[in-house]
Amino acid sequence: MTKNVLILPGDGIGPEIVTQAVRVLDAVNAQFSLNIQHESALVGGSAYDETGSPLPEATLEKAKAADAILLGAVGGPKWDALDMSVRPEKGLLGLRSNLELFSNLRPAILYPQLADASSLKPEIVAGLDILIVRELTGGIYFGQPRGIRTLENGERQGYNTYVYSESEIRRIGRSAFEAARQRGKRVCSIDKSNVLEVTVLWKEVMEEVAKEYPDVELTHMLVDNAAMQLVRAPKQFDVMVTGNMFGDILSDAAAMLTGSIGMLPSASLNAEGRGMYEPCHGSAPDIAGKGIANPLATILSVAMMLRYSLDAKDAADAIEAAVSNVLDLGLRTADIASKECETVSTQAMGDAVLSAL
Amino acid sequence: MTKNVLILPGDGIGPEIVTQAVRVLDAVNAQFSLNIQHESALVGGSAYDETGSPLPEATLEKAKAADAILLGAVGGPKWDALDMSVRPEKGLLGLRSNLELFSNLRPAILYPQLADASSLKPEIVAGLDILIVRELTGGIYFGQPRGIRTLENGERQGYNTYVYSESEIRRIGRSAFEAARQRGKRVCSIDKSNVLEVTVLWKEVMEEVAKEYPDVELTHMLVDNAAMQLVRAPKQFDVMVTGNMFGDILSDAAAMLTGSIGMLPSASLNAEGRGMYEPCHGSAPDIAGKGIANPLATILSVAMMLRYSLDAKDAADAIEAAVSNVLDLGLRTADIASKECETVSTQAMGDAVLSAL
Ligand SMILES: CC(C)[C@H](C(=O)O)[C@@H](O)C(=O)O
Ligand SMILES: CC(C)[C@H](C(=O)O)[C@@H](O)C(=O)O
Repeated sequence: MTKNVLILPGDGIGPEIVTQAVRVLDAVNAQFSLNIQHESALVGGSAYDETGSPLPEATLEKAKAADAILLGAVGGPKWDALDMSVRPEKGLLGLRSNLELFSNLRPAILYPQLADASSLKPEIVAGLDILIVRELTGGIYFGQPRGIRTLENGERQGYNTYVYSESEIRRIGRSAFEAARQRGKRVCSIDKSNVLEVTVLWKEVMEEVAKEYPDVELTHMLVDNAAMQLVRAPKQFDVMVTGNMFGDILSDAAAMLTGSIGMLPSASLNAEGRGMYEPCHGSAPDIAGKGIANPLATILSVAMMLRYSLDAKDAADAIEAAVSNVLDLGLRTADIASKECETVSTQAMGDAVLSAL
Repeated sequence: MTKNVLILPGDGIGPEIVTQAVRVLDAVNAQFSLNIQHESALVGGSAYDETGSPLPEATLEKAKAADAILLGAVGGPKWDALDMSVRPEKGLLGLRSNLELFSNLRPAILYPQLADASSLKPEIVAGLDILIVRELTGGIYFGQPRGIRTLENGERQGYNTYVYSESEIRRIGRSAFEAARQRGKRVCSIDKSNVLEVTVLWKEVMEEVAKEYPDVELTHMLVDNAAMQLVRAPKQFDVMVTGNMFGDILSDAAAMLTGSIGMLPSASLNAEGRGMYEPCHGSAPDIAGKGIANPLATILSVAMMLRYSLDAKDAADAIEAAVSNVLDLGLRTADIASKECETVSTQAMGDAVLSAL
């Protein structure tokens, strides 16, 4: 049966890195006879420029019909002054909510070949392998009411609503426990239950979910302490499960511990396991168009896509092995290069992965 | 004129470390003829145990009358199951809001004598000196409505409100710019303006405040990126200004970069410069009563108190010099000790600071 993949290059370095990732997808498609078809569509700032909307109806229709989506990145200073309702990020948020991609898996892994790139001492970070499971379609990102209003005294007030229901918490909890079962069997749930009522409910529901998974250990940690512990002793964590906003902050911190955010893929899944795959890093407008961006996070996102949504584990393994291979060979884009070493272009890195396949 | 200081030992290691800090306060009081009087009161879990309230009326009255407050720490697992309205943290939050202590100053400084304690590589962290200015009486910590309700479909939903008005943002902005003027003249304001309306207003008002301080540079950073940059290259920051929740997370991460959270004081000030002073660390219930807690953050909080609220700069300088001195002599409590070195008790550390004065 044919599988349909929608390619959303997006903004900034998005198109460059996605080009390399699609080459890799095409290669494994042929090699493993996967019967994958793909087409592209507009999203983010480039979609806004073309159509006036960061998520055109045509893109949303194609996204709903696809078996999986590969996204580059969205946003950039060019669109910063736009009203929030049409900013590039709205394209991303619209995809997440319309497709109900509630479960965001963000691995933070230290590649042994890149150990030097971390700001942390080797003994603190060697062997790091955390999975952050972030709720992606609820919380303060989507809570109503929201906006900026004028008070009676004439001054303006901004407001947003942080909200979670039991069922939203339960489904992301189950995602985390399922993932933990495949790994270290430990879930650490992050809250601010000493201050925020919504996270008191979060903590309670996580305890209920834990009863369904007697083989997995659940602990709780306050978000401020979690931020500290990620710096102090990150290897204490296996799976961390958190809401949308805390997850945004902690997953970026965790990714940066590895020093190689250009290496980290992510998956955003819905209840049926369909998903959107994208690098953890952003659109890096400062280096866009220069041909120096690191395509590996996007290439590894293709591997995640094959594994989680396209039932093609062997092809996923092959891509991951090829990436490891090119790192062993010493190939480095500028972002992961140590001072002495030569750097390769986005395209050359793509070439290298292709020949290692 | 007599100055009145209220001492709030609190819970966990609070009483032990405050005891040493009060000895130091008494010593400089005599040495510099400061005419400081102090009395103690109950707050937090110990206040709840005694009176049924984490912030008894008597404590609040004394706090309002005091020129400055020295607090140890509040909270502990003993009180975790209590309803949020009477938990120890409510005592702390109640003091902050009742006294309008809106400006929380949290320095993150690497002590050169303790450079080894950091998880970060020396070249990343040597010389680190960041000041985080956190809004402390607004934002999602205090926003209404809040609670847990039952929806029509029978499931529960938790909700909190993230809210800031222009005047709240303006006054914390001014605190940050004033502080920056005394230091590196750079303010980085943290927001999530690509998603949250309240932080769009935050960013706008910061721009307005910046016009009052043409000698200080203002930049903006998204909170997720800020969490990354703190790990990647923390020395890029001078003053960071943020809301209550982001400030809670980022200031703890920043403090932990130094590896010595047992060394970091904090000040929470109101519009008149009156304030509450406390260590950045918590009540550490696991080591409470063992006599091994590090009193230096609390002792340095006394120095901050003398400097900011009691107009006694010389005494503040003397305490800071004495602390530096004992570090030079190699004295270490367990939390800041490297593997090989001997450790001293809470009391012995207090003794050493006293004799270095
Ligand atoms: C671009 C932005 C809206 C997005 C988010 O905050 O979720 C990004 O930071 C991410 O983490 O995917
Ligand atoms: C104890 C808790 C309520 C408090 C906070 O979240 O503000 C603490 O973490 C702090 O940072 O002072």
